[in-house]
Amino acid sequence: MDDAGQFLAHMRKRAPLVQNITNLVAMNVMANVMLAAGASPAMAHAIEETEEFSRLADALTINIGTLDAGWAAAMEAAARAAGKTWVLDPVAAGATRFRQDLCQRLIAHRPTIIRGNASEILALATGRGVGKGADAADAVAAAEGAARDLAARSGAVVAVTGPVDFVTDGTRGCRVANGHPMMPRVTALGCSLTGIVAAFAVDRDPFAATVAALAFYGIAGERAGSAAGPATFQTGFIDALFTLTPQQVSALARTSAA
Amino acid sequence: MDDAGQFLAHMRKRAPLVQNITNLVAMNVMANVMLAAGASPAMAHAIEETEEFSRLADALTINIGTLDAGWAAAMEAAARAAGKTWVLDPVAAGATRFRQDLCQRLIAHRPTIIRGNASEILALATGRGVGKGADAADAVAAAEGAARDLAARSGAVVAVTGPVDFVTDGTRGCRVANGHPMMPRVTALGCSLTGIVAAFAVDRDPFAATVAALAFYGIAGERAGSAAGPATFQTGFIDALFTLTPQQVSALARTSAA
Amino acid sequence: MDDAGQFLAHMRKRAPLVQNITNLVAMNVMANVMLAAGASPAMAHAIEETEEFSRLADALTINIGTLDAGWAAAMEAAARAAGKTWVLDPVAAGATRFRQDLCQRLIAHRPTIIRGNASEILALATGRGVGKGADAADAVAAAEGAARDLAARSGAVVAVTGPVDFVTDGTRGCRVANGHPMMPRVTALGCSLTGIVAAFAVDRDPFAATVAALAFYGIAGERAGSAAGPATFQTGFIDALFTLTPQQVSALARTSAA
Repeated sequence: MDDAGQFLAHMRKRAPLVQNITNLVAMNVMANVMLAAGASPAMAHAIEETEEFSRLADALTINIGTLDAGWAAAMEAAARAAGKTWVLDPVAAGATRFRQDLCQRLIAHRPTIIRGNASEILALATGRGVGKGADAADAVAAAEGAARDLAARSGAVVAVTGPVDFVTDGTRGCRVANGHPMMPRVTALGCSLTGIVAAFAVDRDPFAATVAALAFYGIAGERAGSAAGPATFQTGFIDALFTLTPQQVSALARTSAA
Repeated sequence: MDDAGQFLAHMRKRAPLVQNITNLVAMNVMANVMLAAGASPAMAHAIEETEEFSRLADALTINIGTLDAGWAAAMEAAARAAGKTWVLDPVAAGATRFRQDLCQRLIAHRPTIIRGNASEILALATGRGVGKGADAADAVAAAEGAARDLAARSGAVVAVTGPVDFVTDGTRGCRVANGHPMMPRVTALGCSLTGIVAAFAVDRDPFAATVAALAFYGIAGERAGSAAGPATFQTGFIDALFTLTPQQVSALARTSAA
Repeated sequence: MDDAGQFLAHMRKRAPLVQNITNLVAMNVMANVMLAAGASPAMAHAIEETEEFSRLADALTINIGTLDAGWAAAMEAAARAAGKTWVLDPVAAGATRFRQDLCQRLIAHRPTIIRGNASEILALATGRGVGKGADAADAVAAAEGAARDLAARSGAVVAVTGPVDFVTDGTRGCRVANGHPMMPRVTALGCSLTGIVAAFAVDRDPFAATVAALAFYGIAGERAGSAAGPATFQTGFIDALFTLTPQQVSALARTSAA
């Protein structure tokens, strides 16, 4: 398969329009992350526009972070209308029954990719309540089996992100070791990654595209790593998404079959 | 007419309270942009408060970016109650029927100024669907005639922003050549500009005030222009809105009758 | 009582999960402020989740900034379900009848702490409309009596923040002189402080915890104080929340009984 840098070059050339129904915390930083990387984000969630936006956009992401009943209905309508690549980000899936139920309904609309932390993937795969808020309480390694099960059952590529990420389509598996410990200290970087995954996956094999997107993202974190604190880190991270070349990404990616 | 720096000095002295009904992506950066420049922003959209806020505020902006039915109703109520300067930002006007219809209803409430990119102004003037998401697919020059028509028909000053901006009240026209190519790589800078335009226009001729606001904004972009990437650029841009003096703005403005 | 640094050390060790129902402008920066300081923020407002989140979270904050009827109902449900520390942030309380009425209903659910600027505390204590938008039009000293009355009547610790903050539980009083004049030029830093106050107050005396939180926050502002403009200031401020040690906070706090 193509290496990570080739996926980045393809994405930048295509500049896909990605519709994002995301949470209120992530809206701004997700748009900036996607613009910096070279994608074209559009935040739109009105049920009245779902059909038309679905035809315009190259991909869709749904993130359930700051949920309420109206947004949940918009998410279901958009998932139903999505005819192509769409990515589910099941924020805090295990925290409440409302989230668990919505995620199961969304998964029935066959997402191309599901990206979450270990606690969220465990919650989706097992139905048990886990995690506290948006932060993972479980290790990635503890969720690998759950990720394979969820992928096999749902037909989605499943990505469990953390210090070392794990990606599977139920058969293949891959670990991505890029990243930096400061990343969880900046809010919504995980949410924003979901948009990068979607942009990489347009017209490509979603398993390989997800691996490449995770490597690219982690390398940008490594670039920003010498920051004095999380705000300086965020600035350096977004700048790195803009300045990294495909050659650098291919050279620095640390992926391995699992 | 006054030069651009005099408009800035007047705005900073008055520190107008501008009520903004804006999109969820722009909320934070728009407030920071307005505070840095010297205005006083207030984000409030509840229908229950519309009448009272309308009496408190010196100006109103309405931006349809992350629309839904509830927000659309709030926008119409606020436009109806607006007794003074108000500015319409028709984000992605051509993308869906829902947006086109809402914009026509809002324009019936006679905005003082309409600020959009070329695709948005073309969509408003011609009724055709254009553009992809919030990013312009058309050149400013291609929208000059549409802008003049829209201004003549609506009674609003119309500003088409892009690499070189165009402003018209239907009779007069002006181009503003300030700006920097990194500006479209930071989300919501266009949305935030709408708040600066409103703040400049309080108690002033809206055509000249809009030209001055656009020059000021573009000069701040030029100041930030040597940034390593879009996040550093955003930081330098907001700092420049704070530090630029009226004298600098007058000296650096590049405006010409058109 | 413990000094400010000891409160910071306790909070970082406990990393409390704080549920925040806050405004759309503050969401992202509040989450980043809390993560940088060492707390665990969760933004969740759905009525469907209120009971479950209330059991998961260590504390709750409610900020009425970008209000509408649906959010107001969610705030009331959350205040009713809050069994522990909760903090009210009455943004622009005096601006409209809608805000005044909601605040009175929320105060009936007995917040642990109320944090606002002088205009907001005066509006709550006296029922009169004051202030313009989210910015204070009154001096902190002018609101000290109102703060004592509000504390005595409501049972809450009341914090009036400004150039020199004032904290009271109706009997005790304390002033906190830390801070920097650039802080009001960055949006939502007051809103974000409410989350820090809540995190500090978990399992602690709320009066002393509020004083410590205000000192810590102001010291971070002093650290960032040499910035070129408000955006650089925000970056330095959030970094300082991350890097400040308990020892530094204890050494630099400027608090005095009042």
